Amino acid sequence: MEQPYVLGIDIGGQTAKSGVVNARGEVLAQTILVSNNHEDAASFVGALAGTLKKLISDAGVSGQVRGIGVGAPNGNFYTGEIKDAPNLAWAHEKNIPFAKMLSEAMDGLPVALTNDANAAAVGEMTYGAAKGLKDFIMITLGTGVGSGIVIDGKVVYGHDGFAGELGHTCAVRGGRTCNCGKTGCLEAYCSAIGVARTAKEWLEMHPEESSLLRLRENLTSKDVYEAAKAGDNMAKEIFDFTGNLLGRSFADFIAFSAPEAIVLFGGLARAREFLYEPILKSMNENLLPLWRDKVKLLFSSLSESDAAILGASALAWDF
Amino acid sequence: MEQPYVLGIDIGGQTAKSGVVNARGEVLAQTILVSNNHEDAASFVGALAGTLKKLISDAGVSGQVRGIGVGAPNGNFYTGEIKDAPNLAWAHEKNIPFAKMLSEAMDGLPVALTNDANAAAVGEMTYGAAKGLKDFIMITLGTGVGSGIVIDGKVVYGHDGFAGELGHTCAVRGGRTCNCGKTGCLEAYCSAIGVARTAKEWLEMHPEESSLLRLRENLTSKDVYEAAKAGDNMAKEIFDFTGNLLGRSFADFIAFSAPEAIVLFGGLARAREFLYEPILKSMNENLLPLWRDKVKLLFSSLSESDAAILGASALAWDF
Repeated sequence: MEQPYVLGIDIGGQTAKSGVVNARGEVLAQTILVSNNHEDAASFVGALAGTLKKLISDAGVSGQVRGIGVGAPNGNFYTGEIKDAPNLAWAHEKNIPFAKMLSEAMDGLPVALTNDANAAAVGEMTYGAAKGLKDFIMITLGTGVGSGIVIDGKVVYGHDGFAGELGHTCAVRGGRTCNCGKTGCLEAYCSAIGVARTAKEWLEMHPEESSLLRLRENLTSKDVYEAAKAGDNMAKEIFDFTGNLLGRSFADFIAFSAPEAIVLFGGLARAREFLYEPILKSMNENLLPLWRDKVKLLFSSLSESDAAILGASALAWDF
Repeated sequence: MEQPYVLGIDIGGQTAKSGVVNARGEVLAQTILVSNNHEDAASFVGALAGTLKKLISDAGVSGQVRGIGVGAPNGNFYTGEIKDAPNLAWAHEKNIPFAKMLSEAMDGLPVALTNDANAAAVGEMTYGAAKGLKDFIMITLGTGVGSGIVIDGKVVYGHDGFAGELGHTCAVRGGRTCNCGKTGCLEAYCSAIGVARTAKEWLEMHPEESSLLRLRENLTSKDVYEAAKAGDNMAKEIFDFTGNLLGRSFADFIAFSAPEAIVLFGGLARAREFLYEPILKSMNENLLPLWRDKVKLLFSSLSESDAAILGASALAWDF
């Protein structure tokens, strides 16, 4: 019997990564399309469909693809639309019926769409650290802070398809301004950009303190990570601070859905050696006794290059 | 054909209220058992079963009762146990297999157990303000602050059956000590007891300000409500303060599950005229633009005396 396959697509501001995935969660072939040089959605979808058809043909799986799963910023699972996505150059229209457009361009193959963090949660549950878990919260620590919430084995989409915006819950009352226009959001502190902001603020606030971070221009969270690895005190304290904010927010999230685990994913989660202890400590300090020392803190086990594609592709097994 | 009935039981620290309920959500007969004079769970369950049998017989519905729904502090839907309930005088054991004990005492009638806030959510969804809603969050403002979360038509129980402890999310970092041992919990500010604490604190902090509240001893939230009704400024500001804290917490809850509405229930929710505007204002100020002015704030429409029984009874229709 012929094996079934699915396609997974991870759409970001700069590129769209696509892959052919088998039922064991192996990415058999993948390709990257530059996505920021398209004028409108129709042009982008046309180019993407061309790429996908070539990918299917090159991988020798024509006729065996069951469907397509797409993770995209502000992708709505219910409507199949991408809504108000400022980071996508081709997404000028307020609501783009992306799933429908791509399905039509792919000769009727079914297309499921969700946001990138939900896709990551599905991927982690299907192939990764959350395999076998029915209740967990996925937190993506990347340029922003995203989240995908799984309750009783299902992603929570909410009334309107936009549930799980935990990066925009309040971490610090009256704190920093966030990209979203509010103040004190978790994302403003605990994203890659938030960590870099903390470093810049601390360097200014403590001019007397020597730090490797002073040697860098245009500080990034990667610089902070490398300085911490080199033993820099301020860099390590920045991770303590970041972990403390994450942990106390996680405690509130746990009070909501009583998950078995929090699963961390994304670039900043690579700083596990500096984040794990401070997160766990502050999470447990802020939990009700009934959950203290019982909720696991896991880190994604998916290889970074495959994770986004796998997560998106996992959606398509439901067709 | 004979009509089916269910029993609803609301167990509190002082009394257990039981009622016979029909499929239209009408409480046909009810009775109250004093619950704080029993030495252990077996004694209480024995007395309760006697009460229920008399109730069934008096109401003339013998043989037509499909099951029993029970709402109790720390009641666990999954295990049917009441766990660590300090307010129940007869609950000395750490885990009481309450559903099993009551079912045996009731000749095998099926018994479903959950905590009181979840029972209220089920009742509101079945008979009340949340009828027709599939995604909402019930907040009970009573002696404490409880919550029942409904996603896609189902109560969220979480990994361990204890989901929905939103009264113990953090409202004020480093704030008041809560009964649970943590600091700054929503319950420490926005329960009936929390409102009374605010009043006492404010009277001490502002000795120069005249207020009707100064005339009361052992201030309660009811005193604050009555003073506000009489036009007292400080009392009105206490409700503004309380509503502001509730609203900003609700904004974070909405970011979690994207509900259609927040539904308020319980004694303090009777102060609707003073709470509605400040809650709505601060909720919308703290929401992401995508939800602003879109999420409803509803107040329970169930008559107070029936609500707890109805909520518990609604669980039993699933048998």
